Amino acid sequence: MPRPPLSPQASAMLARPNPAVITTVRPDGQPVSVATWYLWEEGRVLVNMDEGRRRLDWIRSDPRVSLTILDGEQWYTHVSLQGRVTEIRDDTDMATIDRIARHYGAGSFGGSRTRRRVSAWIEIDRWHAWGEIENG
Amino acid sequence: MPRPPLSPQASAMLARPNPAVITTVRPDGQPVSVATWYLWEEGRVLVNMDEGRRRLDWIRSDPRVSLTILDGEQWYTHVSLQGRVTEIRDDTDMATIDRIARHYGAGSFGGSRTRRRVSAWIEIDRWHAWGEIENG
Repeated sequence: MPRPPLSPQASAMLARPNPAVITTVRPDGQPVSVATWYLWEEGRVLVNMDEGRRRLDWIRSDPRVSLTILDGEQWYTHVSLQGRVTEIRDDTDMATIDRIARHYGAGSFGGSRTRRRVSAWIEIDRWHAWGEIENG
Repeated sequence: MPRPPLSPQASAMLARPNPAVITTVRPDGQPVSVATWYLWEEGRVLVNMDEGRRRLDWIRSDPRVSLTILDGEQWYTHVSLQGRVTEIRDDTDMATIDRIARHYGAGSFGGSRTRRRVSAWIEIDRWHAWGEIENG
């Protein structure tokens, strides 16, 4: 699997508001995956979650994650990313989740505005594209 | 997260030809995810892969996998499954991959018919639904 940087074609695909799945690993080694919104920002992936999510504990215990991003038009085209969460920050004013929600055409975030949320930035170690996107 | 059996609503969703992502774990603990076709069969998930895929080695080393299946119409609705590969079998006559390809409306399998393929059946330990599907 290629190392970063991603190709311009893969980077352009990731910049769109695509469906994505993120996987973290439980301390006992069981992988746990879930669909997620994400933002592609300057070569890193930004995700945001409710502070009560157990995957936040798992990321703190083992920061390694995998993401698969599906092309929203034709999911045979997809990009998988292996990496590590390198930064976790409280989304104190909901600015980040609102930014992500707007990127996905949802307006401001429609979920709870009283529960705290957390942002996590993921550095990419390896990537691989399928379908209409060339590797490298 | 609930244990099986899945609700009739979740089971009906899984029976459709949805986009899916499967994650295996490398021996060093790094999760690796990829988009996949699957079939929902009598409470188990069937996937099929080229015999050269490294995730086949990883499954043999650690059979624990996670799957997230997105509703093909509206991916906010999705079901995640945690489980184990409990059966691996050579797809000697390509019957399984052809069956899966037809389920996805692709006719017979359009990839290589000379490379060997392998089928893997996944037993579900835990499941969780989001969006329009109720849990339990």
